[in-house]
Amino acid sequence: MAEFEEDFVQVRQRAFAPLNSPRQLLVACAPMRSAVNLGRIARMAGCCAVERLIVCGSGRIDPKIARDALGTLRIEERRSLAPVLERLREEGWMVVGLEQADHSVNIHEFAFPKRTALVVGNERTGLLPDELRLLHHVVEIPVWGAPAAYNAATAATIGMYEYCRQHPTG
Amino acid sequence: MAEFEEDFVQVRQRAFAPLNSPRQLLVACAPMRSAVNLGRIARMAGCCAVERLIVCGSGRIDPKIARDALGTLRIEERRSLAPVLERLREEGWMVVGLEQADHSVNIHEFAFPKRTALVVGNERTGLLPDELRLLHHVVEIPVWGAPAAYNAATAATIGMYEYCRQHPTG
Repeated sequence: MAEFEEDFVQVRQRAFAPLNSPRQLLVACAPMRSAVNLGRIARMAGCCAVERLIVCGSGRIDPKIARDALGTLRIEERRSLAPVLERLREEGWMVVGLEQADHSVNIHEFAFPKRTALVVGNERTGLLPDELRLLHHVVEIPVWGAPAAYNAATAATIGMYEYCRQHPTG
Repeated sequence: MAEFEEDFVQVRQRAFAPLNSPRQLLVACAPMRSAVNLGRIARMAGCCAVERLIVCGSGRIDPKIARDALGTLRIEERRSLAPVLERLREEGWMVVGLEQADHSVNIHEFAFPKRTALVVGNERTGLLPDELRLLHHVVEIPVWGAPAAYNAATAATIGMYEYCRQHPTG
């Protein structure tokens, strides 16, 4: 690693980072308030080569924010989250929620299972009791200062980033 | 780590994660287009207990998005980024830009110096040549799929998260 500057020149259109196998990460969102937040989650999912995004309730994805992710992501629309989580468990996914909860694990110490369904709560209410009881794990992102909570799409972004850091080639 | 679910119960108002010393991370933004993006960067910086955010050009921060971060962050407004970077170097900061560039280092392999000035480029143009030449390091976040680039505030979020992961207690 250089201790002093090199000739840094911007690279446009870097080739995608390679995966040895398709991403075994999917994202499932509770009914959300904001099409902007869902758009941000979709764009991040696209950049991570996530293949499935489950959106509950009347949630809309802002296409101007999601951009080309909408061409590669499979978006599944469902009425409510709890039945989705039951189904994912039956399908063999480890269901991992992002929330501040009793028994939650610091994301810095959590080893993401390869086959992870990452569950994101509503912006205002987070994950509800009937959703929390269906999780295998609750992962929490430390907060050091005000405003004391991450935006929901920011938390989802951090969860996806950390999963990919641990499983860089899929 | 529990293999099966426990009684997960939401915790409201978790105490802040402790720091042994003030954060030695600051964030410096190129002139940005979007008050929403600057608001997102400010909120994330607040959650990470970053103390200084430098905003260049006519950049405005959306206060509804930044929320209580505006009560703790010192916001410094400057005309352009390059003189800011020169000054930070003189003050002993390691100046680390987020960009896809020749000689950039994968963020997964980058050890953030404790005293880091994290530099975020414009949404459309990224970091310009006269800014890149003032960086000590360029850090790049891998992208596995479309739309092939992270939103600028998303990249800043990931940079701050990764710094804090490496320096959890300051």
